[in-house]
Amino acid sequence: MALSRQTLTTTPGTSIELECLYHSPQGKWAYPYSEKIFHLRVRSKKNNVERVFALTGDKYDWEHHHQELEMLKVATDAYFDYWEAEIVPERKRFSYGFRFESGEETVWMVESGFHTKEQPAPPGGYYEMPYIHEVDLLHVPGWAKSAVFYQIMPDRFANGDPGNDPEGTLEWGGTPTTDSYFGGDLQGIIDHLDYILELGVTALYLTPIFEAPSNHKYDTVDYGTIDSSFGDIDLLKQLVDLAHSKGLKVVLDAVFNHTSAEFAPFKDVLEHGADSKYAHWFHIYDFPVKVVEGNPNYDTFGFFAGMPKLNTANPETREYLLGIAKFWLSEVHIDGWRLDVANEIDHAFWRDFRRAVKEINPEAFIIGEVWSDSLSWLQGDQFDSVMNYPLSDKVLEFFRSEDVDPGTFASQIYGLLMRYPRQANEVLFNLLASHDTPRVLTLLGGDTQRLKLAVTFLLTFAGTPCIFYGDEIGLTGEADPDCRKCMIWEEDRQDRELFSFYQQMIALRKKHKVLSTGHFRFLQSEAESRDLVYERFDNNTSFTVWMNNSSSPVTLQHSFGDRRRWQDAFSGEPVQMEGGRISITLEPLEYRILYSTCDSEA
Amino acid sequence: MALSRQTLTTTPGTSIELECLYHSPQGKWAYPYSEKIFHLRVRSKKNNVERVFALTGDKYDWEHHHQELEMLKVATDAYFDYWEAEIVPERKRFSYGFRFESGEETVWMVESGFHTKEQPAPPGGYYEMPYIHEVDLLHVPGWAKSAVFYQIMPDRFANGDPGNDPEGTLEWGGTPTTDSYFGGDLQGIIDHLDYILELGVTALYLTPIFEAPSNHKYDTVDYGTIDSSFGDIDLLKQLVDLAHSKGLKVVLDAVFNHTSAEFAPFKDVLEHGADSKYAHWFHIYDFPVKVVEGNPNYDTFGFFAGMPKLNTANPETREYLLGIAKFWLSEVHIDGWRLDVANEIDHAFWRDFRRAVKEINPEAFIIGEVWSDSLSWLQGDQFDSVMNYPLSDKVLEFFRSEDVDPGTFASQIYGLLMRYPRQANEVLFNLLASHDTPRVLTLLGGDTQRLKLAVTFLLTFAGTPCIFYGDEIGLTGEADPDCRKCMIWEEDRQDRELFSFYQQMIALRKKHKVLSTGHFRFLQSEAESRDLVYERFDNNTSFTVWMNNSSSPVTLQHSFGDRRRWQDAFSGEPVQMEGGRISITLEPLEYRILYSTCDSEA
Repeated sequence: MALSRQTLTTTPGTSIELECLYHSPQGKWAYPYSEKIFHLRVRSKKNNVERVFALTGDKYDWEHHHQELEMLKVATDAYFDYWEAEIVPERKRFSYGFRFESGEETVWMVESGFHTKEQPAPPGGYYEMPYIHEVDLLHVPGWAKSAVFYQIMPDRFANGDPGNDPEGTLEWGGTPTTDSYFGGDLQGIIDHLDYILELGVTALYLTPIFEAPSNHKYDTVDYGTIDSSFGDIDLLKQLVDLAHSKGLKVVLDAVFNHTSAEFAPFKDVLEHGADSKYAHWFHIYDFPVKVVEGNPNYDTFGFFAGMPKLNTANPETREYLLGIAKFWLSEVHIDGWRLDVANEIDHAFWRDFRRAVKEINPEAFIIGEVWSDSLSWLQGDQFDSVMNYPLSDKVLEFFRSEDVDPGTFASQIYGLLMRYPRQANEVLFNLLASHDTPRVLTLLGGDTQRLKLAVTFLLTFAGTPCIFYGDEIGLTGEADPDCRKCMIWEEDRQDRELFSFYQQMIALRKKHKVLSTGHFRFLQSEAESRDLVYERFDNNTSFTVWMNNSSSPVTLQHSFGDRRRWQDAFSGEPVQMEGGRISITLEPLEYRILYSTCDSEA
Repeated sequence: MALSRQTLTTTPGTSIELECLYHSPQGKWAYPYSEKIFHLRVRSKKNNVERVFALTGDKYDWEHHHQELEMLKVATDAYFDYWEAEIVPERKRFSYGFRFESGEETVWMVESGFHTKEQPAPPGGYYEMPYIHEVDLLHVPGWAKSAVFYQIMPDRFANGDPGNDPEGTLEWGGTPTTDSYFGGDLQGIIDHLDYILELGVTALYLTPIFEAPSNHKYDTVDYGTIDSSFGDIDLLKQLVDLAHSKGLKVVLDAVFNHTSAEFAPFKDVLEHGADSKYAHWFHIYDFPVKVVEGNPNYDTFGFFAGMPKLNTANPETREYLLGIAKFWLSEVHIDGWRLDVANEIDHAFWRDFRRAVKEINPEAFIIGEVWSDSLSWLQGDQFDSVMNYPLSDKVLEFFRSEDVDPGTFASQIYGLLMRYPRQANEVLFNLLASHDTPRVLTLLGGDTQRLKLAVTFLLTFAGTPCIFYGDEIGLTGEADPDCRKCMIWEEDRQDRELFSFYQQMIALRKKHKVLSTGHFRFLQSEAESRDLVYERFDNNTSFTVWMNNSSSPVTLQHSFGDRRRWQDAFSGEPVQMEGGRISITLEPLEYRILYSTCDSEA
């Protein structure tokens, strides 16, 4: 019998809060992780439920094909506990329900409602996973899981060829305005590949390099041509080949939401109006195209009349842009696309885009620029990843001061982890800052110690980290244009100690797979303290990260319920333990990383 | 400042239950209803919040482009109130948050969390609707909104051509077994089109008619040929043309999840094993294909070895099936497809299917057979509708006896309405029974009065109703094969009074658009009573339906806060009112439908 509201309020002793239980048979709550493994998630009110079980079976023969699996509490945010189970169905399909236990109470939840007296007879009214199709699952590139990205804005990284500098190029290192050019180019990147390799990153993300009037080039004029101030296609090929030969991947920036007003099809529309064969390439309200008192009669990026929005639903426009995406993949063998203003383009286009891109290179990495909740794009049919600005915000808020307590921070981080399927979390494009934000060091008040804590978090957290060029040597800067300063190449003006720190952290991450794809959990995150202990782990290996986010020394203690031995992750020095307990004293803003593996026990 | 758990528990007087507030910036919670209109929904704990406001604005210029809109409480289920707002953004895009008010309390909810002290500064951390793309919205066929369907199982409806009867055809009206044939065919349907028109339905849904060994034909052997016992393509064309000429649409059944084991490609695989060019058309674990102790080494529908599952992700299979879908649309001009076992086929296939089908006929109706939550298919890229068995269950449970009280029923119905976007609700394929369930009259204990209540609900509710052949003349039957009895054509054996009732109800629905697409709400649904009053309404017109679902007479009263005058929907007789109050006495299991319109006030 399904519980009605009336039944409920008169059932004495029911304290499992049904209103707070949540599951939906789709999206991040129920999704294939691989062709054989399916993930179920459910949430309950924080501290309201003791144990949760997933009850699964084959709807066509439940009696002979069913199982019960205890779910793990994998996250806790400000209001909820999140429970997860890994299902390996016998035949790629299963129906399911949940059982919640708390003290003497039991509640069953199936799609048709709640039950408190007994398990409802399966499979009627149960949730359904009808069939796991490989084609529908979110398959993310394996290489991206362990990659460390380096974001380069070509005009500002290095000037390798003064011969192609645009008119009015300023002296390297000057103060940038929104209009200034500094002459950086592809040759400059080639010239500094050794530096990049020395840092240890494994992939480059270049902001746009196609022909465009601005210094940032987010206003494309010709998608088929490298901007002449950066180089040409042959030079790009040289860069990509060289990068590949050194184990570096290269991802380019696709600006498909809008173009420059100088884009030939838009100019044609300006000239020929409704008769232009490109009339349907944009979102034009009426002809002739005009701008009255700053208001264009066509859709634009933001309110910028100079950036007309492309009509990506128009078949010709779509085919043109897909052609561009395919051209650079197949001709130059780039390793993926970062998609500018991706959330303002239609989902149908991105589905075609994914199919086109993955047909050429199934391991191409597709990263959307979406600043808000991105679940609609991370279901397997569109993107692999998005730029994880919500993570940047929380990490920077926490490490900037002592205003946010570790309990709140842990809640926020767990909340973010529960936004997306696990394989998306594994390649989420995690950054602390970019060309669109102030520099990370500036955001952290210029405090290098705080920067190290934030970077340590970034490089020991789940997801694909990305470092904005120059952050590693202490570049500062307020919002655009200040954050887009020229890279500093004179070693005596670089923070070399900071560089070494980045090197060390990147090397550690690259050496240990568990730092990329291991599970994540907070071990200590008390509201009353200012310190934090968290763990990355799999069946064999564990890293624990200990942080003092305060201006006073602190001694942290944690008991491990097993006989593992721990060592310092960098020095390899064994850590003293007493009865399974580790005790560590940290200076203000200090951190320490400990490592434990089954092998080391031998 | 975002609220942390810690802040929350120490804020005195906060009684809006934050844990129960829910919104997700996608799916049924945030979706385009049309290119200009966007729907937002949010839920709160039942009776916990007094007023809710949607706060919207343009993220690129919030100051000059923002508005505040009070949301309507559109549904209440056992645990939650649901609030809805219709947003008409200036520029196809908006960011948004919600404000909840209860007594002196105010809570703001945005994507980044809850706020209790003041509205967080927009648009940072707000939810986003980046751009409404027509191509992404769920556009459902206009005709389907006002259609009344009639489901026919051709072998059992009428035998118009004894010359094509299969071997062993039984005498019309005999007791069906799972293997029996009765000789019904397309000519039989043509012969009885007048009967169908007399009933008043506007669309036919035929269960499968392609070549297949069984009587139900859900085991296709040849998708390109009409089963010879039913007729041929010319006869189907004749049927469809005739139907169209009389204003009837025709929808066929596509069985793309699996085939018969006699399907030529599967036979080829049986014969040639891994060398067959059809080896990838199915999900085969290893070769040779075999069945050991009843266990096939390939995926099947259920556990039926004779129904091998098609690999719809294989490009050749996909193109073949899409070709079939297109062929019958373009050659015979059918008006849509009902999709068998649709939930076990991959989403990528259904996206291609929708595109292919709508390219030929944008108004083709696509109905998936999905028995459980179907939201994943109703987002604009796959189906228009699904068979609404969850509604059947609730309606039958309620009208079968007095066990379910009207309060519970109203909760359930509201819960179902909140499962999907509104335009999906407008064409949800609402049925009381089908070839896959016992007959509706049997499910209702053979009680014609109860049947009339249930059918009245079906035909005055939101969604596209479908009547299973013969229900209208009182056919009974337990589950398959009993529910698939032959149609009774001798008028003296038909329940003609029931037929007239169906006629009358269908005519009423067809005459008044508000019964198809008006808003729905319960006016009276008390747990303590056994009667029900609900309303369908738009700005001008209203229907109220009054029902006594008990074995005792009851007098229902309802006050309307306006000066509308009401009349009996069938007789047109004015209804007596006293001070805005209507009082109606209903005999056991009686119902009455009242009508009011602005025009009648003149």
